[in-house]
Amino acid sequence: MPKIAVVPGSFDPVTLGHLDVIARAAELFDEVHVLVVHNPDKQTAMFDAARRVRMIEESLVEVGVPGRVVVGEWTAGLLVDYCRQVGSTILVKGVRSGEDVAYETPMAIMNRHLAGVETVFLLPDAARAHVSSSLIRQVSALGGDVTPYVPATVARALAEQR
Amino acid sequence: MPKIAVVPGSFDPVTLGHLDVIARAAELFDEVHVLVVHNPDKQTAMFDAARRVRMIEESLVEVGVPGRVVVGEWTAGLLVDYCRQVGSTILVKGVRSGEDVAYETPMAIMNRHLAGVETVFLLPDAARAHVSSSLIRQVSALGGDVTPYVPATVARALAEQR
Amino acid sequence: MPKIAVVPGSFDPVTLGHLDVIARAAELFDEVHVLVVHNPDKQTAMFDAARRVRMIEESLVEVGVPGRVVVGEWTAGLLVDYCRQVGSTILVKGVRSGEDVAYETPMAIMNRHLAGVETVFLLPDAARAHVSSSLIRQVSALGGDVTPYVPATVARALAEQR
Amino acid sequence: MPKIAVVPGSFDPVTLGHLDVIARAAELFDEVHVLVVHNPDKQTAMFDAARRVRMIEESLVEVGVPGRVVVGEWTAGLLVDYCRQVGSTILVKGVRSGEDVAYETPMAIMNRHLAGVETVFLLPDAARAHVSSSLIRQVSALGGDVTPYVPATVARALAEQR
Amino acid sequence: MPKIAVVPGSFDPVTLGHLDVIARAAELFDEVHVLVVHNPDKQTAMFDAARRVRMIEESLVEVGVPGRVVVGEWTAGLLVDYCRQVGSTILVKGVRSGEDVAYETPMAIMNRHLAGVETVFLLPDAARAHVSSSLIRQVSALGGDVTPYVPATVARALAEQR
Amino acid sequence: MPKIAVVPGSFDPVTLGHLDVIARAAELFDEVHVLVVHNPDKQTAMFDAARRVRMIEESLVEVGVPGRVVVGEWTAGLLVDYCRQVGSTILVKGVRSGEDVAYETPMAIMNRHLAGVETVFLLPDAARAHVSSSLIRQVSALGGDVTPYVPATVARALAEQR
Repeated sequence: MPKIAVVPGSFDPVTLGHLDVIARAAELFDEVHVLVVHNPDKQTAMFDAARRVRMIEESLVEVGVPGRVVVGEWTAGLLVDYCRQVGSTILVKGVRSGEDVAYETPMAIMNRHLAGVETVFLLPDAARAHVSSSLIRQVSALGGDVTPYVPATVARALAEQR
Repeated sequence: MPKIAVVPGSFDPVTLGHLDVIARAAELFDEVHVLVVHNPDKQTAMFDAARRVRMIEESLVEVGVPGRVVVGEWTAGLLVDYCRQVGSTILVKGVRSGEDVAYETPMAIMNRHLAGVETVFLLPDAARAHVSSSLIRQVSALGGDVTPYVPATVARALAEQR
Repeated sequence: MPKIAVVPGSFDPVTLGHLDVIARAAELFDEVHVLVVHNPDKQTAMFDAARRVRMIEESLVEVGVPGRVVVGEWTAGLLVDYCRQVGSTILVKGVRSGEDVAYETPMAIMNRHLAGVETVFLLPDAARAHVSSSLIRQVSALGGDVTPYVPATVARALAEQR
Repeated sequence: MPKIAVVPGSFDPVTLGHLDVIARAAELFDEVHVLVVHNPDKQTAMFDAARRVRMIEESLVEVGVPGRVVVGEWTAGLLVDYCRQVGSTILVKGVRSGEDVAYETPMAIMNRHLAGVETVFLLPDAARAHVSSSLIRQVSALGGDVTPYVPATVARALAEQR
Repeated sequence: MPKIAVVPGSFDPVTLGHLDVIARAAELFDEVHVLVVHNPDKQTAMFDAARRVRMIEESLVEVGVPGRVVVGEWTAGLLVDYCRQVGSTILVKGVRSGEDVAYETPMAIMNRHLAGVETVFLLPDAARAHVSSSLIRQVSALGGDVTPYVPATVARALAEQR
Repeated sequence: MPKIAVVPGSFDPVTLGHLDVIARAAELFDEVHVLVVHNPDKQTAMFDAARRVRMIEESLVEVGVPGRVVVGEWTAGLLVDYCRQVGSTILVKGVRSGEDVAYETPMAIMNRHLAGVETVFLLPDAARAHVSSSLIRQVSALGGDVTPYVPATVARALAEQR
């Protein structure tokens, strides 16, 4: 049975750090689902979910992530419900520091309990790992150059937003 | 003179992790006050303070916490003002990780200064410790089963809210 | 060429911990710019930027910080744009714990990339380090005594606000 | 091509926490190699490598770990040389806290560089995670009961050593 | 029944940070046992156990710790065996940071399991907390002034050792 | 008066991460002293102090660190005694994570007290930061390629040692 991993996130927008984690997941597992999760608590979305999905798809082509990678969105319901639906028992999260792991642990334990879904933590490439989507949005909005941290398709989309 | 400990929190809602800490506090000190603190910065309360108090009281009976335990609420004023009022110089906080302690330290130092109130950190039972009230609310709202993490009275109240 | 360091912050209001870091920066570098940065994400400002600048200036006199210290404000644009404008390549941040460093790291890496601006982390005096501006505001609003943590000019301003 | 994961460790002795991680790895990957690594810097081994291998094999039967699990030892050379030899590009490490991840990160980055071997971090079951082999050895030597933390075969071996 | 707390440590030598924790424990509990624990893994003891006990006793008088405080030593057996012997179910540990808590957690969980002994974490006074006995020994051996960190009786003993 | 910074370390051997920190210090301060500190507790030195000094000097030429950089050794006495001797009040430490800062804090506080010497924490380049000298020694001894982490002069010296 093929091993399917889900890489969930806001991806608002996707960064090269995210793509690095996705590429690593694609090496580890037979199929990867990148899932744009709409968090109702965050009303500060820059791009709508459909746009985020499209940017990820274009970025995957741009940076050439190998393997079987699917992009989807999930705007209601538990993350593990999506996992069940596609037959996955694996979540992948990139972690930049010990503090990230501490932050992710409660949700990981909950997902294990709710549906036997295991969370796998990967280290993104150190040179790209430390920059989050929210920092990208903030710096870009103030006119800063974020091109070293995002794929070209995202850089263009951010430039349009200014 | 009896040692009175205050266990403050939002308790929105109380979890088995909280009850575990309360029970441990009840073993350590002569009297325990569980205090529902209304945080004006958090407008996302699921249950009002009176309801939270009632759920804690019912939960204490349900899980059988030993010792003298009182439940109250505190919606205005400093936490240490409550401590002074009931003659307590001890606050008890459950900590799930080093990050929790780092988060609690500034308030603990402030409370020590303001009123000579000492903060005591306890480790909740590892099997129940990692799940916070906010995660409970979020998972329950999306239809997930939270029964292993909350007392039955809370599970029922959450089911009504859906 | 003189070394100019920028100490950025919300300073809402300035604390003795901040002043301790500013004084240490003034020992390390030839000139220090204390910069009140308006964060558009934080709508809960207690004092407006001009007032915060004035309080810092009065506090510097009050506690007697040596060296060349300038106070300014920055309400739009990247922090590194201010640095470029005044010819600084050095940011100074006080860090109270490892968690603080983890929190500051992404922005520090971004500022290095954007403009070659280096972030220098200093340890504030342990006796004053742990109390943040937001805790000061919260405790003061509830009637608590914050005088050991802030300069007298700030203590007076907080008393007026109650 | 089957995905082969290596779970390295001293396993002196193997604990229920280790077996929990091994079982999770066996769910995630097609084949798991549990590798007893002799660390020349640690001269305080309680059991020799052959004995540790045998205890792991007996424990796997005892607790019933599913899937294809092989046990080996590696006493000289780089861990990644073993990986290359068996065609694995995956290391699995159980992490109990953010501090554990910080500790493992340098070696993980080195192994990625040396041989393209990726390190995957898993959370062991919270109820069993916090007890290390060295704590087991220490407590057992002083006559403490470690049976809740180790498989029966290890408990017997420890009892003989006292 | 009186609540008896045990404050274990190497105390080689006792510092003002230790005495601060002991004094806080004496406020919280009816009786405090300061226990010099000989760790067989540490062969670098500066003072033998009897000397360390004597220095603690003299320091308690010197700094005037209130309450009922007993000093003892424990050179073989589990710490919880001492607790059982004196009727204590409470251990007190001073923690200077989140990292300290992470370090103490496994032993705390083990002691809870072995004998129902609860570990209580306290924050020492920030101004004295960060200096450990090993740093004191190291700095003193190199001729540095450690008087702000240790009681006078210890300062004298260290001076003799140089 | 020129600002002199001391960058202390074992440098056994110097890595590209160290050289990155040294180069950043050379941008921040007027003069930098790289100081090979012999730690009497570490008997596992690979290179003697004189050799380490020479390797640093050769590496500084190799990677082209700008500014005034002096290399020295310090085998007895307090680090702050060296600082006093050369008129420095600044120590520079590279920190790879929050855990590193927590580790360095006690010594930094002690050095501030002993001699008014301030410790400045810098973030090394993320791509090179995570690899320590001890990991370099260990991997090199086992035949691994460490060339991406060390200057060429160190790579040659390590190759001779195998």
